[in-house]
Amino acid sequence: MTLGLGIIGAGRIGRVHADTLTTRVPGAKLHIIADIHAPSAKAAADDYGIPAHSDDPAALFDLPELDAIVICSSTDTHTRFIKMAAQAGKHIFCEKPIDHDLAEIDAALAAVDAAGVQLQVGFNRRFDANHIRLKQAIETGEIGAPQLLHIISRDPAPPPIDYIEVSGGMMMDMMIHDFDMCRFLLGEVVEVFAMGACMVDPAIGAAGDIDTAKVMLRFENGVIGSIENSRQAVYGYDQRVEVFGSQGAASSGNRHANAVTLSDGQSVRRDLPLNFFMDRYMDSYAAEMAAFVQAIATDQPVPVNGQDGRAPVLMAKAGLRSLRENRLVRLDEIDGD
Amino acid sequence: MTLGLGIIGAGRIGRVHADTLTTRVPGAKLHIIADIHAPSAKAAADDYGIPAHSDDPAALFDLPELDAIVICSSTDTHTRFIKMAAQAGKHIFCEKPIDHDLAEIDAALAAVDAAGVQLQVGFNRRFDANHIRLKQAIETGEIGAPQLLHIISRDPAPPPIDYIEVSGGMMMDMMIHDFDMCRFLLGEVVEVFAMGACMVDPAIGAAGDIDTAKVMLRFENGVIGSIENSRQAVYGYDQRVEVFGSQGAASSGNRHANAVTLSDGQSVRRDLPLNFFMDRYMDSYAAEMAAFVQAIATDQPVPVNGQDGRAPVLMAKAGLRSLRENRLVRLDEIDGD
Amino acid sequence: MTLGLGIIGAGRIGRVHADTLTTRVPGAKLHIIADIHAPSAKAAADDYGIPAHSDDPAALFDLPELDAIVICSSTDTHTRFIKMAAQAGKHIFCEKPIDHDLAEIDAALAAVDAAGVQLQVGFNRRFDANHIRLKQAIETGEIGAPQLLHIISRDPAPPPIDYIEVSGGMMMDMMIHDFDMCRFLLGEVVEVFAMGACMVDPAIGAAGDIDTAKVMLRFENGVIGSIENSRQAVYGYDQRVEVFGSQGAASSGNRHANAVTLSDGQSVRRDLPLNFFMDRYMDSYAAEMAAFVQAIATDQPVPVNGQDGRAPVLMAKAGLRSLRENRLVRLDEIDGD
Amino acid sequence: MTLGLGIIGAGRIGRVHADTLTTRVPGAKLHIIADIHAPSAKAAADDYGIPAHSDDPAALFDLPELDAIVICSSTDTHTRFIKMAAQAGKHIFCEKPIDHDLAEIDAALAAVDAAGVQLQVGFNRRFDANHIRLKQAIETGEIGAPQLLHIISRDPAPPPIDYIEVSGGMMMDMMIHDFDMCRFLLGEVVEVFAMGACMVDPAIGAAGDIDTAKVMLRFENGVIGSIENSRQAVYGYDQRVEVFGSQGAASSGNRHANAVTLSDGQSVRRDLPLNFFMDRYMDSYAAEMAAFVQAIATDQPVPVNGQDGRAPVLMAKAGLRSLRENRLVRLDEIDGD
Repeated sequence: MTLGLGIIGAGRIGRVHADTLTTRVPGAKLHIIADIHAPSAKAAADDYGIPAHSDDPAALFDLPELDAIVICSSTDTHTRFIKMAAQAGKHIFCEKPIDHDLAEIDAALAAVDAAGVQLQVGFNRRFDANHIRLKQAIETGEIGAPQLLHIISRDPAPPPIDYIEVSGGMMMDMMIHDFDMCRFLLGEVVEVFAMGACMVDPAIGAAGDIDTAKVMLRFENGVIGSIENSRQAVYGYDQRVEVFGSQGAASSGNRHANAVTLSDGQSVRRDLPLNFFMDRYMDSYAAEMAAFVQAIATDQPVPVNGQDGRAPVLMAKAGLRSLRENRLVRLDEIDGD
Repeated sequence: MTLGLGIIGAGRIGRVHADTLTTRVPGAKLHIIADIHAPSAKAAADDYGIPAHSDDPAALFDLPELDAIVICSSTDTHTRFIKMAAQAGKHIFCEKPIDHDLAEIDAALAAVDAAGVQLQVGFNRRFDANHIRLKQAIETGEIGAPQLLHIISRDPAPPPIDYIEVSGGMMMDMMIHDFDMCRFLLGEVVEVFAMGACMVDPAIGAAGDIDTAKVMLRFENGVIGSIENSRQAVYGYDQRVEVFGSQGAASSGNRHANAVTLSDGQSVRRDLPLNFFMDRYMDSYAAEMAAFVQAIATDQPVPVNGQDGRAPVLMAKAGLRSLRENRLVRLDEIDGD
Repeated sequence: MTLGLGIIGAGRIGRVHADTLTTRVPGAKLHIIADIHAPSAKAAADDYGIPAHSDDPAALFDLPELDAIVICSSTDTHTRFIKMAAQAGKHIFCEKPIDHDLAEIDAALAAVDAAGVQLQVGFNRRFDANHIRLKQAIETGEIGAPQLLHIISRDPAPPPIDYIEVSGGMMMDMMIHDFDMCRFLLGEVVEVFAMGACMVDPAIGAAGDIDTAKVMLRFENGVIGSIENSRQAVYGYDQRVEVFGSQGAASSGNRHANAVTLSDGQSVRRDLPLNFFMDRYMDSYAAEMAAFVQAIATDQPVPVNGQDGRAPVLMAKAGLRSLRENRLVRLDEIDGD
Repeated sequence: MTLGLGIIGAGRIGRVHADTLTTRVPGAKLHIIADIHAPSAKAAADDYGIPAHSDDPAALFDLPELDAIVICSSTDTHTRFIKMAAQAGKHIFCEKPIDHDLAEIDAALAAVDAAGVQLQVGFNRRFDANHIRLKQAIETGEIGAPQLLHIISRDPAPPPIDYIEVSGGMMMDMMIHDFDMCRFLLGEVVEVFAMGACMVDPAIGAAGDIDTAKVMLRFENGVIGSIENSRQAVYGYDQRVEVFGSQGAASSGNRHANAVTLSDGQSVRRDLPLNFFMDRYMDSYAAEMAAFVQAIATDQPVPVNGQDGRAPVLMAKAGLRSLRENRLVRLDEIDGD
């Protein structure tokens, strides 16, 4: 059986999924890509050999050959398209975050449940070989009972200011991946304490956001964690995680384009790590889509469901409140936000 | 412009090229795959979505939609298909080695020249990020004038004995990649001294071959090199090269599926390196085919030509003679073999 | 000129200083070691070739050949011996922490000032090659303006419970080194938030202490830092620091007894890191004592003075209050404690 | 019991032994150092607190307080002093090489045997933590049956030409350590093939020596080995060994003064490895002397005996003949040289 898919949104991430779905995802047939900006839809269709394209996302919901819709449009359109897809009986893959508003998210998840379709949220890092290996180290008992977690997540450069202005801020846009990683590795978090600052670019501060942050978290199982974010690591994309436990520790390093070491009169060195999330995580995008297609095709639960999409938004809100109020915030304080 | 291609041979390496040509090589259109074993051709066509398949390789030479033929059949058929393709005016990509016999090779190269087509030989490692980085370190002067070279090349496990019996032996089948690497990095070799033994499996010795070898080489430019081969590294595919020069050294390490380090009460460790040439070098297969397609499409010289295919065979012959006669062998002793 | 020294306290750390002073510190002459436990003093004198020993620490203050006293007795005796040494006009090297009580510390520092002698506090890690290199990376601008700091400090195994009971607790006894490292690398800290737990041994919790902790700190210069401590890393002494800045990052790794990598059918591994602070930091003990002797001999300020001894005690107190009250604590809240 | 020692030769290596014997070798008492250049003897005595010094090496043989003589004078004096010490009934530690002439060596070893004293030869690298770990990996079966060996040994810079002229050449002076390492790790060698060249400094060639070499060796147990030497690695002292076996591989890396990694906009790098043999191998000098003192004091065989001193000289001679005659040389061809 081949799963029929359509993509809404032909921007950067929409093109990533178009690429993987047309070349690297077995059992998938990408029929169409839609974007309200028609030239983008056409360009993606041409570049990836997609049979059809459209400037009307709503048109996809009526196409009988589509089993699932991949939502890659801007965040503010996510819940609308989720609800429309659910009503049309289509399974849904939606990029992160589902929305910045918990009530909006809850309404969308309710529509999904009511329709009896499945929703997978695009936390691609769960499908990265490093992070999977860390989870395996935890789950097999290789490092004993987890006690401490530290996540380093640094981008090579900040996004444009106009993106930052609509992004929901560093916690909602960037650290949300790390909040998800916390849950993926070690389960639910109950308390958050955040410190943040604007150190990279004053324009980010002027836009009301931070570009540098550290967050401490207490997990339900007692583990104490921390997350570091910076919008700018001059040496490239820096993505490392360490879990320490009663019987050992597991630490992931960065990925590099080559494994060559150079020694000269100055230093022993290697080239910079992969510099961009699409280089670093390309395999994980293919793997998450393959997992989605496989789950739908075999009628199994998707590996990252709606609740997994909601929880990191809640954590981001707790982090933001901690920043504002300069105090430890319990996640159960937030739920009425 | 799109280049039309057909593949002859639907075995392991034929399928690798079918995979890359259908998904990862821009500007290529794979029309057909042929194999005298019809089910193999059909299976490959199904698996990679190739429009046609055939059990008659010769049929490809008449197809007008084919600009180039990719020869992946057994080594003893290479020169025959090269000559047929050349006569049909098709460009040619041929797997290594072209042949075990220098006269046969010369005849095939003459046919290629006479037809005015191009021939690229499948030394895929030249397209690997590690090896390219080493070459760049040499060519940019980053490590000064090269003085010493050491190549380690170890397979995870020996091939079946019946393969070994027709392979031309370890030097012609396995070390030939390293001989090519020598030339890729540092140019022509003038002298070879070899030591070899059967240490892994007595059956390999009984088949008249060795499974462990070390070769010392002197380059035209004075560099002193060495190559180590083993048919069996229990920890996986071990592929490392070090070039030492007047201003530094460049060393490549192995590639791993993840970059996770585990510490426990026994050791600080990581998982084994990639265990198989198709994992280790998959990107290089895509890159070599992209380079071939690009060169033909733009009418530029292919990056690994017939002479590059012939020279490592000559080196292997010198190595074999050194083994037999237990002495230093000059390459110019061989050319009448 | 040779500086005459006497040691008070012939326990573990007293013996370390006896060892370095008799073999590795130029310009020093160790005349005597005293311990109220006479056999310990004698054993140390025998083992390190010290001319004299005594069971009466007070006897040292009258010896004219002594220019300086090295105080290695239990923490509760530190300020008493500091004051006696100061009154006798002797320079002082005192192990960390000076005391658990800020008023006691202030009185001792006042006595030192009044006597016009110098006091160096035993924060040996400031003399470790890794930490010095990190500081150099910061001070030379190699990594630009510092933005984030993360310190990992884990012991191989917890000390005996009866030691824990008098130690002042994990923050005062163990993390105090990391608080000092914060100041050494990046200057003064203004705010502290701590999470801690007893995860290693319930007996530690029963003694009123924690064995696992993470602390977040804000520095006067805006840097956001964190410290992780565990009383038990099964793989050995784990001491790593990372400073991230606007132009790069500097990270220290652990030290190992050998630099051998082993590959087998299971993993690529190396032996565990140095397992004990005396292995890991032995060179730093020699270097700190050499720096002390050199400073006194040349009448220069000692590199780790009384104020450097006091500040980490203050930080530990802030950390303890944060733990108790589950909130961010400003250091200026503490000073009346 | 304390072993009484005297040193002949107060040059660089004599001072190394004076340093370790006075500070780091338990059970040793260094009574005197002699050098025909009186100021050198006096300087060493002053610097290391040695009670006596002399400009007459012969005077040491009559001193009843000396149990052993440490010979650190120039190579051409070694066998003379060995014979005198033996006749005086003193045990002997002699620096490498014993001599460049096998007959001279044999005469000295005969004198040692006749006198019933012990002779240890200064192959200090056998006492280095890396090399010991490699040997352990071999002996415990951790890597199975050894099959291949590769030794990289590169100096940071060539010695002065006048030293090279009396040194016996690169093979006798520098590679002799690696020949010893071959035997230490894997036993006797039966065949040698060498390539060498002058690539670093033409003045070395003018002095009749080479500065760059690679040697292939076949061991009695079938292992195939190679050694690389260069007189100049611009990045510092490069000392690495890899042993490959049926169950795995063990590889040693270089030692560094710190374990700090720096990342910036250009590279991920660390500082150069230790740059000088006295930094890299200082611990091994202390350990070899401790082992000597311990063996003599307990009447056990010394760990590196006269035969261990002779064999690498024989290997160097075979290497030199291979270089001259451009062919594989069996060690049993040499023994009449």
